[in-house]
Order: sequence, then structure tokens, then C-alpha cells
Amino acid sequence: MNFKSDNVTGAAPAILAALGRANAGTLPSYGEDEITRRVETRLGEIFETEVAAFPVATGSAANSLALAELAPPWGAIYCHPVSHIITDECGAPEFFTAGAKLVPVNGPDGKFTAAALKAAIMGAGVVHHVQPAAVSISQVTEAGTIYSIDDIKAISAVARDAGLGVHMDGARFANALVALGCRPADMTWRAGVDVLSFGATKNGALAAEAVVFFDRAKAGNFTYRRKRGGHLFSKMRFLSAQLDAYLADDLWLANARHANRMASILAEGLARVPGATMTHPAQANEVFPCLPEPVITGLEAAGFQFYRWSGRTVRLVTAFDTKEADARALVAKATELARAAAAD
Amino acid sequence: MNFKSDNVTGAAPAILAALGRANAGTLPSYGEDEITRRVETRLGEIFETEVAAFPVATGSAANSLALAELAPPWGAIYCHPVSHIITDECGAPEFFTAGAKLVPVNGPDGKFTAAALKAAIMGAGVVHHVQPAAVSISQVTEAGTIYSIDDIKAISAVARDAGLGVHMDGARFANALVALGCRPADMTWRAGVDVLSFGATKNGALAAEAVVFFDRAKAGNFTYRRKRGGHLFSKMRFLSAQLDAYLADDLWLANARHANRMASILAEGLARVPGATMTHPAQANEVFPCLPEPVITGLEAAGFQFYRWSGRTVRLVTAFDTKEADARALVAKATELARAAAAD
Amino acid sequence: MNFKSDNVTGAAPAILAALGRANAGTLPSYGEDEITRRVETRLGEIFETEVAAFPVATGSAANSLALAELAPPWGAIYCHPVSHIITDECGAPEFFTAGAKLVPVNGPDGKFTAAALKAAIMGAGVVHHVQPAAVSISQVTEAGTIYSIDDIKAISAVARDAGLGVHMDGARFANALVALGCRPADMTWRAGVDVLSFGATKNGALAAEAVVFFDRAKAGNFTYRRKRGGHLFSKMRFLSAQLDAYLADDLWLANARHANRMASILAEGLARVPGATMTHPAQANEVFPCLPEPVITGLEAAGFQFYRWSGRTVRLVTAFDTKEADARALVAKATELARAAAAD
Amino acid sequence: MNFKSDNVTGAAPAILAALGRANAGTLPSYGEDEITRRVETRLGEIFETEVAAFPVATGSAANSLALAELAPPWGAIYCHPVSHIITDECGAPEFFTAGAKLVPVNGPDGKFTAAALKAAIMGAGVVHHVQPAAVSISQVTEAGTIYSIDDIKAISAVARDAGLGVHMDGARFANALVALGCRPADMTWRAGVDVLSFGATKNGALAAEAVVFFDRAKAGNFTYRRKRGGHLFSKMRFLSAQLDAYLADDLWLANARHANRMASILAEGLARVPGATMTHPAQANEVFPCLPEPVITGLEAAGFQFYRWSGRTVRLVTAFDTKEADARALVAKATELARAAAAD
Repeated sequence: MNFKSDNVTGAAPAILAALGRANAGTLPSYGEDEITRRVETRLGEIFETEVAAFPVATGSAANSLALAELAPPWGAIYCHPVSHIITDECGAPEFFTAGAKLVPVNGPDGKFTAAALKAAIMGAGVVHHVQPAAVSISQVTEAGTIYSIDDIKAISAVARDAGLGVHMDGARFANALVALGCRPADMTWRAGVDVLSFGATKNGALAAEAVVFFDRAKAGNFTYRRKRGGHLFSKMRFLSAQLDAYLADDLWLANARHANRMASILAEGLARVPGATMTHPAQANEVFPCLPEPVITGLEAAGFQFYRWSGRTVRLVTAFDTKEADARALVAKATELARAAAAD
Repeated sequence: MNFKSDNVTGAAPAILAALGRANAGTLPSYGEDEITRRVETRLGEIFETEVAAFPVATGSAANSLALAELAPPWGAIYCHPVSHIITDECGAPEFFTAGAKLVPVNGPDGKFTAAALKAAIMGAGVVHHVQPAAVSISQVTEAGTIYSIDDIKAISAVARDAGLGVHMDGARFANALVALGCRPADMTWRAGVDVLSFGATKNGALAAEAVVFFDRAKAGNFTYRRKRGGHLFSKMRFLSAQLDAYLADDLWLANARHANRMASILAEGLARVPGATMTHPAQANEVFPCLPEPVITGLEAAGFQFYRWSGRTVRLVTAFDTKEADARALVAKATELARAAAAD
Repeated sequence: MNFKSDNVTGAAPAILAALGRANAGTLPSYGEDEITRRVETRLGEIFETEVAAFPVATGSAANSLALAELAPPWGAIYCHPVSHIITDECGAPEFFTAGAKLVPVNGPDGKFTAAALKAAIMGAGVVHHVQPAAVSISQVTEAGTIYSIDDIKAISAVARDAGLGVHMDGARFANALVALGCRPADMTWRAGVDVLSFGATKNGALAAEAVVFFDRAKAGNFTYRRKRGGHLFSKMRFLSAQLDAYLADDLWLANARHANRMASILAEGLARVPGATMTHPAQANEVFPCLPEPVITGLEAAGFQFYRWSGRTVRLVTAFDTKEADARALVAKATELARAAAAD
Repeated sequence: MNFKSDNVTGAAPAILAALGRANAGTLPSYGEDEITRRVETRLGEIFETEVAAFPVATGSAANSLALAELAPPWGAIYCHPVSHIITDECGAPEFFTAGAKLVPVNGPDGKFTAAALKAAIMGAGVVHHVQPAAVSISQVTEAGTIYSIDDIKAISAVARDAGLGVHMDGARFANALVALGCRPADMTWRAGVDVLSFGATKNGALAAEAVVFFDRAKAGNFTYRRKRGGHLFSKMRFLSAQLDAYLADDLWLANARHANRMASILAEGLARVPGATMTHPAQANEVFPCLPEPVITGLEAAGFQFYRWSGRTVRLVTAFDTKEADARALVAKATELARAAAAD
């Protein structure tokens, strides 16, 4: 009954099992092994284009290393003010870029528009100002919402005109993909994305992400940055094996579909709770209901775990292994609590 | 028959199994879980003092984060010219310290003396020079040798007089420990070490090290540095579970004893090969024989894998899972090749 | 007739003359000379407390070096969104702090309140967030306004409670001081300021500022930071001599009074121009009138130089050597143009 | 009688006078003025090619900014172990490059050979190692010696083959130039130099150097780096006017010739002092005699100022304004002291 985050979960059994299979015998270290190569090839197939893919263990590493490839130390990186990179990484992007500036571009529900981005871009060629360098969008956003493909295309068009690289923080990439029901290529490079942080940890891996460049020529120095950041694993097989299993048999898509469905149960159920409203539309595996205070405290007392987000809005996150019974129990308990409160 | 490094191996079965056990249920993320706490407690018992211990996934991360706690951006870090931190981390220490300078202090067999360190320290209080800040020693060294406890005490005494913090790169800590047959505390804080990179990856983990501070007060900002470096795992349980199993039932010591014994077989056997000499004394799990060229090429042709180090010196590394038969086969083959060459 | 900035001017004759006097003979380099010592002593007298004062040549250097002493790489520095440090230094603070984050705190007329600061401070002790470290206020602000002593005290009180260091960007310090008519100590350390960028360049020097610490113990590593930033002058006498002459005979105060008076002439005159309004109150030596478009273009056509700030608001800056006739001519021309436009 | 350094001097009168002339009227700030443009044009004429030239105030800034243009954070910069950039700038190159590694290449008399450079270059394309990026030579060297044009060509050829940029630290460029009696172009770009720190401070300016790129296309981001480093002067006219006067009427060459001649008087005179030897050949304006201890202490007692370099070797530096009488007096005193000592 823990809905605090999709990182309070363990790993999918198939991914754990893959570690055992990868364990046999000696293998070249530092990513020269066949499993790592296979993952890159498989990602190329999934994205329908040749990619350069680099496994790393954390989302902060993936995001920061990717952004460092796009932005010089005097660069501006445009992002939403609630984006993970600007609020939740303790300055990791500034560290890896050697001091680039994250410039907030606001908008409702964790998203900004192409127009808002365009209005925010300034200072190109003027020595007093940081130089427009990159834009980063989260897909799924930190508000649990999703950019449409047209949204992404419009943002990328503005970016391209201004000479910005486009980064997508895909910590919950699979959840967005199955929600949109589109092809991975359509949501990324065909819509103008240059680099993707392809997350697996929140969706069933132990600790594995891949930084995916859709133009191999743009990945030039990534390998040095990764090593220098302490993110090149000697026994890389154990990172790659996670991704390998994640992509096999569409496990990643199945896991995301399950998590999203659990979120729908929560969202639809809670929407009917008297006094509840939805602070953001629930489009993937995060639900942000605004609940009556007695409902919140009652759920907590009943052992449900989640974060209070702001005011009476709470965040509920589902995952690949969320039990349907738990989701339904939360809805039932909230309904019961709301009715009791109304009766008082 | 791969003696290239102790990182071409997989993981010890007990460590893999621990991942499965750690997988059950939800747990607090980012290191707030009980497994992580248990590892810190256990390390405190092993080192006979309260420690602050931080799991990370790579040795470069452990070393660089530890050094960044000891040295300001304008600091000098004294280390051996063949040390991993100065030659093999693509500048990671400079990255994490925001530009500290690694100052080489030379000496035979990968070690420097307290006197050499003392002679190298300069510039304190003079604004033109980087400021003496830290010393780093590798135990086991990159030449497969070991500092005696008296060596370490002498170096630490010089360091203390000069106001330097003392870091130990213990990527092969267990191998040194069992070779010296001493207590962990004697080889570290009782000998003056402030911070230890406690390696597990090379000795049976998948990817796990711990940065261990012997004075918790000196670990002040480590947690921010780790997060900011992208090295704070969300599902920390999977890092900690590796260390937990590594330390349980003295697995770490048994693994190291085996690797060292395999290296002894190689060293003693190869020492008797006609025309062979030992470039460095083999004191742990690395052997650096200087071999006749036909022996080198013959071994390669026979499928033995290892690195040519410099000239006719090669490096052979054994690990927790090196097969005794393989070690003996290498010696036998080398002996046969040397005799054949001599007969020519 | 150039009102673009107070840095389009030359230097005050007395300051130029001081360079000639300082030129005689050999002197110790790198700030060990008597002129540099005298400047520090004199600043101590002026501020009625012992100070540590470090001459540098530019305001960006002064600000960034000062902030780097207050904020770690994972620190948050709170400042107004139009502050020079966040908009006009091409990321210099991020460079010198090794990646700290400048967090905007908004408010009208280039100022924020203590309450706004308090509301912005967040994340202390939470590893995911940058850590509250410093607050920086500009006095005069970039909107030409001035914080009252009570404003500063209130901000400092919030800062002290949150453990923040307090920095004042005093690029136009003298202009603020004479406008408030208070003692230097009252506007700085007695109101809670820890470090001051004491500007002289805009008020008559060639290129000279001093970073002033009101608690010498807090200046610990400044000297290394300055050297490492390339800001330690070998012939320091020539920086210090500028400051020496600037402070002698109250030249700095006389210069600022003149500049402020010229701004008053502009502000009072333009306020009476039909169709003109003041975007910000003119409290020092900067005037931000919002003018009818024909007035703006007419002034430009007549040879007056200034920056268009945003929309029909322009910025007019006066300096120590602004000619009263020029200020009056601008007002007269604007009045004439406005009347002509109204007559059309 | 102060021979400690060429930075204990004041400025040449013609340069001081130029500041007065530059003071008239308002001028565009931040280097958009005509004096700055004129200096760039003039440097182009002197170097017989179009250059991009950027005035800065200190040698450390010039060197570090130039190197940051040549080397990425994971780059290796090859330089002599006694070079100013590695020993005397408190880590400024590491700061400006965001952590590049300065790799020492040794050789006698402050110089290294092309062969030594070639032997030092390693690791290209290997992710574990910093990547060969640049070479920096000092002309005059820190041992008072000079690279011949053939030396420079040979070093540049090795550099070009290895893909390294070539930087020359010309803090005493004019002294080397007049000693070699060659054209500026021959000692720089025609010999393969990409970027020059063109020093003026030690040879008569107050505080002025120019970073000169011989291929304007390679100066791409310099302007952002300079601003971000706090090295873009608002009243740039006062930096540029120094360089303007320095280059006018061959003042720079006359100053250097005088300084070198004064050094010759010292070197030739001291070579004849009984018991004295020359630690390095005196080829420009620095003399490194090894003197009997009584001579050293006797000179000090007589009021001559200089640095003890190492052992009984002292460093004597002459400048544009060294008095011939002082130089001759030092020689006479040393001779007298040596004879007295011999007579004891």
C-alpha cells in the first residue's frame, strides 16, 4: 500500500533473472561486452534508427550527462520550473555542464508550450547573457501529464530555429509511450528530440537507464564525460543485462501498461470521492488528487503511504507491481472517509 | 583463462542471491532503507569504530567523491604517478574536486615513502601555489604491492603535520588485508587513514563500493556531493544488498584469500620459468612478470588473456573465481614455452 | 549626451593623477605594497570596523568571488530576477561557485521583501535539493531603486535564521549611500550584510572594485579564489591607487551626489513631460521613464544615447561627470517633442 | 636595486600618458570602442596576419582563458614542470578548463624537446585516460631561456600530428623576440603556434595582456569565457590604451632590449665572479647565477633584492626601467664579496 513513488518497488523478476544469466564466465569490461552491444542494437530497432546508447545507473546521471553534451558552461537550458532537473537533482546539471544555467519556462500541469519557450529564449550572441543552448522536457512530466506529439514537434521547431538541442527526460518514458499509443520514434527523433534519457529503473529495473542519441555524431564526447563522472561500470554486463531483459518480450511496455491502468483505477475512483478534485489530469502512472483533509489523514492512518504535494494535493504513484487490490482498497477507503466526513 | 583484470569476472553467487532476497516488497528509497543502515552498522563493527559509510557503484565515484571531501578546488592531492586516480579515471578527481591538482610522488613498486611525500609538499600559505590538501595511497597498489602498516603510519604522520587528509583507494582492500593478516582498523584509521574507498566490485560484487569515513564529522557534505554526482541510487537496497552479502560470513575475506592464493601460484610458478623475472613483488592478486617474448606470444596463442604492461612485463590478475587449474595451466604453458625457446 | 550607462565615462581626474603618483619606484607585487594596505585600513575606518578588503578590477569578479565564499557548489543563492548576477554576467557566479544555483525571488522595482525571501527558501537538509546558502541584494538595484535600512535588516534577519550569508552588490554603493544619507556601516554590516562588492568603476575609477568582508574570519580562502580566477594583479599598486584616490577627500561621495543630482533633474523634468510616466521611482542615478514613442525616437534623432529597456520604457544613467546642461537639454527636448506630438 | 621580478616596477611613462589621452569623453563600453579595435588591427600588422585579440589584465587570465579554448575538461595539457601555468597560478588552468590535467614534460633549462613531448603523449581514444589536447610553452621560459624557432617548429609538428593545439605563454614575449631578433610571425604562427598570451605588464604596462588567436575561427567562445571569468572590462578603453601605447613607436621592443641588455651586464659580470656559475644560460631578462653563500648574504645586506631560487642559485630579473648603474653596482659588489670571501 505504498504509493510514494515508483522507486520504492523492487525489480521485475525477469530482470533479476537476467542478472543470473549474465553472470556466467568472463566478459570484457567497461562496455566492450556483447550484452551491451545487443542493447544498443535493440534500441536502434525499437527507435527505427541507428542510435548511440550509453547505459548508466541513475536518472540524474542520464539527464546531466546528456545535458552536458548539449550545453556549454555558459549555456542556458530551458525547462519547466517543476522539472526534476531543476528541482530534484541537487544541482547535478550545473555540475556536469560546469555551470550552465537552468532557465524556468512555466506552464500549467507541468508542461510549457512552444510559445512560452519562444518567449523565454533571449540573449543569443550578447556576451553578457548565458547563451541559448538546450531545452529539456519531461515525458511523463512531473505533474503526471504527457506532451502530445504535436506539442513536442512545436517545441522542437522553436528549439531548432534558436539552435537549441532537445533533450527528453524519459524517466517514465514507457508510461508515456503506452499512454499515447504511438511508436517510440514518433515521440522522439521524428518529433525533433536529439537525446533521450531512457528510464528503466522506475519501471522494473534495479538501477538502469540509457542515454540515447538519435544522431551518433552528436554523442562525440559522451564516453569521456561518463567515465569522468564515475558512471562507466567495469562490469557493465550487469547494467546492460537489466536493459536487455527490460526490452525483451515487450516487458517494458507491459509493465508500463499495468502501472498506468492502476493509476486509472485510482484516478477514476478518487474523482468520484465527494469533495475530491484532480489537481492535474492523470495521464500516466501518477495521480494528483486534491482531497478533503480528513480523507488524507484517514488514508494515512489506514496505512496508505504517499506524499503530500502541496496544500491538500497528494501524489499517488503506481508501478509495474502495484496490486489492483491495493488501488481499489485506497479508493474504497477514501470514499468511505469522505462520506463519513460529510456526515459529520 | 582470462587474467586481464578482476573486473572481467561476474559476481559471487551469494551476492547475486542477496539481490533476490532484497527484492521483496516496497522499501524507502534513496538509502533510507534498513539494508543500507545494516551495512553501515556492520562496517562499524568490522572497523571497530563508528563510521559514516556511503554506497556507490564504481571505484572512480568512490575515489573522486572522497577526495572532493578532502581537497578544495585549489588543493594539491599527492599520489603515486601510477595510481588509478591520476592515470585511469579520465580526470574524475579533477571533475569532482572542481579542479584540484594531483601531484605525483614517485617511488618503486607503485609505492612512495613518507620521506618522498614530505619532500613533495610545498607552497602552503603561498597564494601562487595550490595548497597541500590530501594524500591518496592505493592498498593494494597498482603494482600489486602492499604498504605495510608502518609505511601507512609514517605517511599519515607526515600528512598530519602538513594538515593533509589521508585517503586510501581500497579497490582491492580485502586482498591487502588478508595478505597483511591484520585487523581492518589497523590498516586504516589506527594508521591515520581518514577516508577509505572500500571496494567490493573487483572481489565479487556486481558494482558496489562504500566510501567509509572514520570520523563522521568529516563526512559533512558527502551526501550532497553524491546526489549531485548522480551517484545516489533510488533503489539503494540493490547496492546495499551487495555489500551486505559481501560482508556476511566473511565472504569478502574468503574471496580475497582465494584470489591471492591463485596469484601466488602464478608468481611462484613463473619465477621458476627460465628467463622470467618479477618486475614487482607479487603481494596480493596481481602478478607482473617480465617474460621472454616467445613466452608472451605463446601464451596469447594458447588463449590466455592478459595485458602487456610495458616492454616484456605483463600483468596477470586473479580473482575470487579464478580456477586453480587455469593458473597452473598458465604456469605449465609458460614453462614449456620458455624451455622450447631456450632449446632453439 | 550619452546616458547609456555610467561605464561609458572615463575616470575622475584625481584618480588618474593617483596612478602617476603610484608609479614611482619599485614596490612589492601581488598586493604586499603599502597602498593596498592603506586602502584596507581606510575602508575599515569608513565602515567603522576591521575589514578584509580585496581589490579586483571588475564587478563580475567582485560579485562572483564573494558569492563563491558564501555558497558551496550545491548551494542556492537567492536574488532578484533582474539582478546583475543572474542576468548580466554570462554565468560568472555559476562558474566561480562551481555550479551553485541562482534562485530568483521576485518583487516590484527590482527589490524583493524579506517575506518573499522567506517563502522562497526551501529544501534545507533534503539531499535532492540545492541547499540554501546565500542571498544577494543590489544596492542601488538594477531598477534604480534603493533598499531602506529596514528592508536590509529584515532580509538579513530571514537570512540569518536560515543560515544564509548576505551579499550586497554595491556596484553603485556610493549612489545608494548618499541617497539614504546614512553611514556606510548602517547600510551594511550593522544591517546584517556579510560581504560587499564595493564598486568604484561606475563612479569614477578606471577599473577598480573591492570585495569587503566585515568579518575577517569569513574571508578564509578568498585569496586563493582570487588568484585562481586570474584576478590577483601583479602590479596591484595600480588597482589600489584608484581606490585610494576614490576614498580620499570624499571624492566617492561627491561623485555620487553629482550623479544622483543629475538623475533628479532628469526624473523631475521628465515626470512633467506630457504622456510620460516613471516605470520605477528614480532614487539614485538611474531613471526609467516610460515615454511616448515620438519622444523616444525624437531624442535619439537629436543625438541623445540611452537604452530602450522594455516597451516604451528607456533607461537613462547619469555619472560623476554628467553635464547639467546635457541633462537639462534632454528634458527640454523631450518636453518639446511631447508637445509637438500632442499637437499633431 | 630590486631585482626580484619585472613586476615590482611601475609603468612606462608613455603608457601612463596614454591613459590620460584615452580618458576624454564617453566611449562604448565592453570593448566596442575604437581603441580596442585599433589594438587588434595593430597586432594583425605586427603579426602579418589577421588575428583575434582579446585584452585582459593578468597573465594568469590570459593563459587560462587561452588554454580553456584549446582543452576540454577531460583534456591533457603538456607543459614543462617549472612552467608558470603548472606551478604559479594556484590551479587557474584547471579552474578555467573545468578540470583539465596539466601533464609535466621535463627537460633542462626550463625547456622540453619535441621528442620529450612525443614520448609524453598517450591515451588518445582510450576512455580511461585524459585526452591529449594542447601543449603550452613559455617564451621566455621560467629559466630565462628561449626556444629557438626550430625548437618551436619541431614541438608544433609533434603537436599537429597528435591533434594538439599549441599555446605560447608570452609573459615576456618581447624579451624573447628581441633576443632572437626575428619577426613576431616567425616565432609564433609560422612556427605552428595557435594562441599566444601576449604579455605587456612585465614590460611596461600597468596591467595589460592580449590573448591573440592566429586563426579567428578558433576563438569561437573566447568572448563568453572572458566575460564569465569576470575579465571583460566595462571601461575597456583603459586596458586597450595600455596596449596601444605599448605597441606604438616600438616602445615594447625598446623596453625589452633595455631589459635584456641589463641582464647581459649582470650575466657577464657575475660569470666572472670567483666561485659563481650560471645555473641556466641568461638569454633574455632573467639571470640565474649560483653564487657563494657569502656573496648572496652580502648582496642582501647591501640592499640588493632578489629571490633565492633553489640552493645557492638566485634569480635576478631586469626590466624596462632597470638602471644600468644598479646592475653594475650589483656586479661590483658581488665581485668584491667573492674576493673577500676567497681571502678569508
